[in-house]
Amino acid sequence: MQIDSIQVFSSRKLKDLCVRILTKVDVPPEEAELFANILINANLRGVDSHGVTRLPVYVQRLKAGGIVTPTKIMISKDSGPLSMIKGNHGIPHVVATRAMEHTVQKTRKFGVGITTVRDVGSLGALADYSMIALESNFVGVVLQNDFPSGIAPFGGRVPMMGTNPMSVSVPAGRELPIVLDMATSVAARGKILLAAKENRSIPEGWALDEKGYPTTDPHKALEGSVLPFGGAKGFAFALIIDILAGIVAGASVGLYMESLYGDPAARQDLGYFMWCMDVSRFVSVEEYKEKVDDLIVKIKNSPKGPGVDEIFLPGEIELRTRERRLKGGVPLSKEVVKDLTCLAKEMGAEFPAPASSE
Amino acid sequence: MQIDSIQVFSSRKLKDLCVRILTKVDVPPEEAELFANILINANLRGVDSHGVTRLPVYVQRLKAGGIVTPTKIMISKDSGPLSMIKGNHGIPHVVATRAMEHTVQKTRKFGVGITTVRDVGSLGALADYSMIALESNFVGVVLQNDFPSGIAPFGGRVPMMGTNPMSVSVPAGRELPIVLDMATSVAARGKILLAAKENRSIPEGWALDEKGYPTTDPHKALEGSVLPFGGAKGFAFALIIDILAGIVAGASVGLYMESLYGDPAARQDLGYFMWCMDVSRFVSVEEYKEKVDDLIVKIKNSPKGPGVDEIFLPGEIELRTRERRLKGGVPLSKEVVKDLTCLAKEMGAEFPAPASSE
Repeated sequence: MQIDSIQVFSSRKLKDLCVRILTKVDVPPEEAELFANILINANLRGVDSHGVTRLPVYVQRLKAGGIVTPTKIMISKDSGPLSMIKGNHGIPHVVATRAMEHTVQKTRKFGVGITTVRDVGSLGALADYSMIALESNFVGVVLQNDFPSGIAPFGGRVPMMGTNPMSVSVPAGRELPIVLDMATSVAARGKILLAAKENRSIPEGWALDEKGYPTTDPHKALEGSVLPFGGAKGFAFALIIDILAGIVAGASVGLYMESLYGDPAARQDLGYFMWCMDVSRFVSVEEYKEKVDDLIVKIKNSPKGPGVDEIFLPGEIELRTRERRLKGGVPLSKEVVKDLTCLAKEMGAEFPAPASSE
Repeated sequence: MQIDSIQVFSSRKLKDLCVRILTKVDVPPEEAELFANILINANLRGVDSHGVTRLPVYVQRLKAGGIVTPTKIMISKDSGPLSMIKGNHGIPHVVATRAMEHTVQKTRKFGVGITTVRDVGSLGALADYSMIALESNFVGVVLQNDFPSGIAPFGGRVPMMGTNPMSVSVPAGRELPIVLDMATSVAARGKILLAAKENRSIPEGWALDEKGYPTTDPHKALEGSVLPFGGAKGFAFALIIDILAGIVAGASVGLYMESLYGDPAARQDLGYFMWCMDVSRFVSVEEYKEKVDDLIVKIKNSPKGPGVDEIFLPGEIELRTRERRLKGGVPLSKEVVKDLTCLAKEMGAEFPAPASSE
């Protein structure tokens, strides 16, 4: 991507645009607000693949009936710390937020809460939900299974699972919290799609071609499979997530699932697995925070490898990017700007002027 | 290792040897039985690094007071599904088994159980404990933090964490269960130690030298650090395990911890984090098992990559090795046989004749 193809927008204005567009397709204002905030949050953290670039596909689904508003979640099982929620194919971001808030409430009562969610679609960047736990000094875990665009079994060559993502948020004290948010593939499939679009080769170790040989050709990779992170270990994680978020939740496993980018009227049938734990049931919050901060500071200040300027903790780069972009604005590629301008025009919403071009 | 340096022993005879030796250092018979079984189980599954080869160091600790018998665990906090256990520096394998059984009992009641354990040492192969959950059709997770012989932060060059292992066991129906048991490093440090002993080079991607450069020299690797599996993602796992199994459990973090191979009189202060969940609280066990089996069979029968004879699910190779070794015996290297023969002699126990030599 060329530097001169970037325009920078105020996050507030981008959010207002999302809200305006969403309300035009009958999304209730409070849902539009929440959904837009989560999309913008991804851009603020630098996770642009899960930000406003996804608004068009969601609008398409809202129009076609693949997503149904108003979002009505239903607690279909409730047994002590455990709950099963049905999302009724509402806005995934709204369903997931409410489900995680419910998990936090359970954790307040029992010290731990587990919630599974079914009848929903792709929820974007998982950190937005696992981080809800941090406000209560809880550890938060979110797993989502996905359609098998992605990972072949270790030793195989045909994708049998999605790049099933997971997020773990762990509270700290004065230091930034630890926020892991990752796909179980080495690299997100979106990066391979982008490389194919721009006819760039991809690094070794990302993908296999359809015969199962390593490839650096993104087109061949898209016909083949993406490699799980950490080899057989990453394959195991992808599989376990398919079981917990898919089968235990009563949702589909990846193999039998609809893609976010498939028929917009079809209902995705993926699942979420959410887990929270109250650390204060084990140790005092003060002791906990002091020890976590000490560990973070010692790691941060430990000797650096060759060519390394700074050691970053999990999620630190994203949280620092957020600080920076909140002030300086969100950079969007001309391509994303074009898509959003079209969408805005179609929906009769005014597209904001950029704060600056780079 | 040369093929002709291997002798094969009946697992029953090896277990009896362990029990005899352990009772000579005042381990109560039922604890000796349990401990010996877990050591032999590691050998049966082919995880020889965690099997009878470790008996001598444990005997040393039992003699020196680093491990105290009889093992007395104490439940120091008990709040609904959550428990904190103090191991009183008993035999780690006994403490961990009882703690996991306690977690299973909690899960029977609440659908989920979380137990942390402190005042204990290294518990060997984690799968032995996570698999306890399988008997009840529960999912079982065990995390253990360890002294920082291992992993440098991503971007760093000095080990700040152990190769903190984790195990996840997931029940299936007719198919073998899914059992993930892994270190958060690319390769176990034990393999590098062995390569150094035999002056063999190690594969690229396993370790860094003390300046932080990649190395295939095992001696330089031992002065440096081992790489986390999956790069920054594996570093995040190692760190999160240090926080959950160390800080939340009220144990030490790796940085401040004693090594299993250090002063045998010193008490290791590592921690465990155990978690069980009853899948039947969400979906019927029949539906669950049918779907998991279907997924396993489809993965198992999916097209293979080049040069691959069979696709293995996580833990499958180990469980099949167990079947084979239960019948055919446990192969031990001459080195391990020598160590055990010495130990047996010293303790006045008779060393069994091998079933065969290879």
